[in-house]
Amino acid sequence: MVDDTGVRDRETRTADTLAMLTTQAIDVWVATASAEGAPYLVPVSLAWVDDRAVIAVAKSSLTATNLMTSREARLAVGPTRDVVMIDAVLEDAVDVAADEALGAAYIAQADWDPRHDTGYVFLVLRPERIQAWREANEIPGRTLMRDGDWLTEMEA
Amino acid sequence: MVDDTGVRDRETRTADTLAMLTTQAIDVWVATASAEGAPYLVPVSLAWVDDRAVIAVAKSSLTATNLMTSREARLAVGPTRDVVMIDAVLEDAVDVAADEALGAAYIAQADWDPRHDTGYVFLVLRPERIQAWREANEIPGRTLMRDGDWLTEMEA
Repeated sequence: MVDDTGVRDRETRTADTLAMLTTQAIDVWVATASAEGAPYLVPVSLAWVDDRAVIAVAKSSLTATNLMTSREARLAVGPTRDVVMIDAVLEDAVDVAADEALGAAYIAQADWDPRHDTGYVFLVLRPERIQAWREANEIPGRTLMRDGDWLTEMEA
Repeated sequence: MVDDTGVRDRETRTADTLAMLTTQAIDVWVATASAEGAPYLVPVSLAWVDDRAVIAVAKSSLTATNLMTSREARLAVGPTRDVVMIDAVLEDAVDVAADEALGAAYIAQADWDPRHDTGYVFLVLRPERIQAWREANEIPGRTLMRDGDWLTEMEA
């Protein structure tokens, strides 16, 4: 029998998730794969801008190369026992100097400024599914976004 | 100019890394990819046994399926700013009830016991490369194991 003490309802999980994603100077684990299926994983700074995960990486990095090819990433934010997992697709890749509003939004949350780093790009990742759980008892009800839409309390 | 205040030497990083990997009830991020190149990522409990990362997962899980096919994983242990990154290959997959010594070693470190869970396997992952860093100033010197061998202070 699963102990459901402290299991958060969807409203609370969604609020906690948004609070986590907008935390100052927080990092995101970015998992990608090469065209040959080699897994890659790296932690980078996160900015959460208009329901998108924005990261800044070197154009030549494995993360950028993989994403430009497959357009798919799986992201994790938070410690392993209070996690937000995001399946996302690459929506846009812009030179760090090219989009002033995006650059301003990025540095408002991240604790470094990549805008003058030659060869860096902002990768804008659009979430398709978001899940959040702390321990095994929170596995039921972990899905907060499906097909790009936040679920409401009404939906299963 | 990079600020090298507090940058750990290789001996210290190796000691810190082994201490991290053998921590009680610690989790590991496991990044894998499907045959089609879809990235997957999940946190699971870690046991560090004879220089191998041992995890217990359902045989039917994406992590097991991906690893059985590609045999490659990229692992991360620790928070994003004190990280141990491991590129590993699948060395062995054993039914959780089949190897008593491995089961005992696993539960001595992990905080759950999968040995009676039908359909669970221990996946034994052999590290090929291990890197550890805290902040950007620790990127130089981050490689502690290469081609499966721990580097000594003498090696570049």
